[in-house]
Amino acid sequence: MQQTRLDTDRIRAARRVIDPVFLGTPLYRCEALEPGLGCAVSIKLETANPVRSFKGRGTEVVASLLAERGPRAVVCASAGNLGQALAWSGRGRGLDVTVVASRFATAAKLDRIRALGAGLELVDGDHELARERAAEIARYDGIRLVEDSLDIETCEGAATIGLELVEALERAKPAEQARPGEQAKQAALAELAELAQTAEQAEMAELADPAPPFDAVLIALGGGAMATGVGHVLKALAPGVEVICVQPLGAPAMTRSWHERRVVTTDSTDTIADGVAGRRPIPAVLDDLLLVADDAVLVQEASIIAGMRMLLDHAGLVVEPSAALGIAAILEDRDRFAGRHVVTIVCGGNVDGDAYRRWVGAAPVPHKA
Amino acid sequence: MQQTRLDTDRIRAARRVIDPVFLGTPLYRCEALEPGLGCAVSIKLETANPVRSFKGRGTEVVASLLAERGPRAVVCASAGNLGQALAWSGRGRGLDVTVVASRFATAAKLDRIRALGAGLELVDGDHELARERAAEIARYDGIRLVEDSLDIETCEGAATIGLELVEALERAKPAEQARPGEQAKQAALAELAELAQTAEQAEMAELADPAPPFDAVLIALGGGAMATGVGHVLKALAPGVEVICVQPLGAPAMTRSWHERRVVTTDSTDTIADGVAGRRPIPAVLDDLLLVADDAVLVQEASIIAGMRMLLDHAGLVVEPSAALGIAAILEDRDRFAGRHVVTIVCGGNVDGDAYRRWVGAAPVPHKA
Repeated sequence: MQQTRLDTDRIRAARRVIDPVFLGTPLYRCEALEPGLGCAVSIKLETANPVRSFKGRGTEVVASLLAERGPRAVVCASAGNLGQALAWSGRGRGLDVTVVASRFATAAKLDRIRALGAGLELVDGDHELARERAAEIARYDGIRLVEDSLDIETCEGAATIGLELVEALERAKPAEQARPGEQAKQAALAELAELAQTAEQAEMAELADPAPPFDAVLIALGGGAMATGVGHVLKALAPGVEVICVQPLGAPAMTRSWHERRVVTTDSTDTIADGVAGRRPIPAVLDDLLLVADDAVLVQEASIIAGMRMLLDHAGLVVEPSAALGIAAILEDRDRFAGRHVVTIVCGGNVDGDAYRRWVGAAPVPHKA
Repeated sequence: MQQTRLDTDRIRAARRVIDPVFLGTPLYRCEALEPGLGCAVSIKLETANPVRSFKGRGTEVVASLLAERGPRAVVCASAGNLGQALAWSGRGRGLDVTVVASRFATAAKLDRIRALGAGLELVDGDHELARERAAEIARYDGIRLVEDSLDIETCEGAATIGLELVEALERAKPAEQARPGEQAKQAALAELAELAQTAEQAEMAELADPAPPFDAVLIALGGGAMATGVGHVLKALAPGVEVICVQPLGAPAMTRSWHERRVVTTDSTDTIADGVAGRRPIPAVLDDLLLVADDAVLVQEASIIAGMRMLLDHAGLVVEPSAALGIAAILEDRDRFAGRHVVTIVCGGNVDGDAYRRWVGAAPVPHKA
């Protein structure tokens, strides 16, 4: 069977060099979301970290390798999240970071890049122009170009999300299949009871999980680092889990490519989901996506906004549009997910306040029972 | 030296019976908060879990013990967060849970309790009346009464937050004092380099942390379970960290008690911070608080609201008022914290949407550079 560019051993090794602040992120059922969606939903939260997106995982791997073997100067093109993450990872290791971004990029993201001490160059065009300029800088200045999703380390970092999802499935297994962790739990319970000097011997209730373990993961699809990384790990270690990628209708290039099994580009993008607004898929990434994704769907802007509003109202989270793509997919196809348990990766929370207010409206709406 | 009611061995044992969804919660610097506060701030996030507060830690301990040795019916008085957490922990173990609350309690909290299948009884009075009614139910029906902060398990559960803070301090130690984790990290880096078949031998850059480790923890003070639990662990394992409790001016009983070293009650409370609006401190809890807290301060409602707004704007988090007490304390005493690195425990996110909008106003304000 054909292999992806990824390797699960390398992904495990990569995890060990990533700052723990990006690892072991929350994975929890948000039952308040469920009446509105018709299925059980677990949030994998990638915003509670210093750069408010999952991209720190990948940049930690990149920066660790660069710090060890150089060069110490690096440039990337970014809609903002990769740049902020690379700036953070570089700062901690004394690397010289330059970020090239479109001047139309989210101001909140650009400010964080400057605040973290990285050089910031703006181009008068879109993300694809930024990619060209970053490549140019790397060529002329001889510094390392970091390319989101093409560079395997960016995929390996994101893939560690997949390891954590697999480990959660392991923990959810019934007691008779329980790993040493479960036995340790029972031992600890016994110890607590002893410490409490109780002589009672009562049966310990079976831990009942009211929802089955998740069987699908909804992944925002931009360059493809997260989709291929997480997809690779799930297909390798939990192949029963459906891997569903989600993109905006306004930035559909990779999704069309996946369906047509060949690189399809678009001339422009039109979406508020700036984090996934690519238009020129990378062939090597598409090859991997074809191996690990079970589906790729497109959603409307209105659904993305509705998803953002639901996450604000029912999970108390301000998220950027890309992070609401999973919820949007459920909203647009309730029948598909009805009665199931899905994970949605809330991948970023960097958004301009005034844009957010324009899209989502006022703070949490009046409480509904 | 006088001892608290707590025991660090029991707290470690308690951790092993708590559902992992409540453990290992994010602890991360939120640099976007810092210009407005004048100090480095790390958020310890206790809202990214199925009950959106830290109280699941304690109820998991309680419910585990009850499931093992009974009784299987339990009642508690709650402003909402304890009740929701106990309902969740009980549901997973087949316990029969009744929550008694004031009919003025936060509607969002009450709805979650019902949704989790617990019985809910409302009293026509405040939280103290709910405590009396819960005790009455327990007496007449012979079911177990769970009392926040009095029951040692509620403190032990909260104390596991302290274990995680201590472990973070351990990880932050310089390389020469590094624990096996750091050595494993360097070994992993070498492994990655080998897997990449690189022959270069470059020095690995020292991991530079631009802020010193934290030296103070700001803890919302209600019944005292979290303050005494976290305080006990810090005093035992990281005594250099200052433990500062924060209460609203409108619910100052425990703070006054701490300063006067005797139980001081109030006739009423007047604060939006419903989660900490107690007025009759428990003597045993005060005794422990006197041993482990370095200070207890009171803050204005306006500061709490300002803190909530800052967490929304700069951390993308909708929090309940109690969770903003730490930020409020910094706002009211910048000089005290200037240049330091403090942790604030964001302890809960259960809040009514319309009340939140009234207090905080619209969604994130226009972005400021």
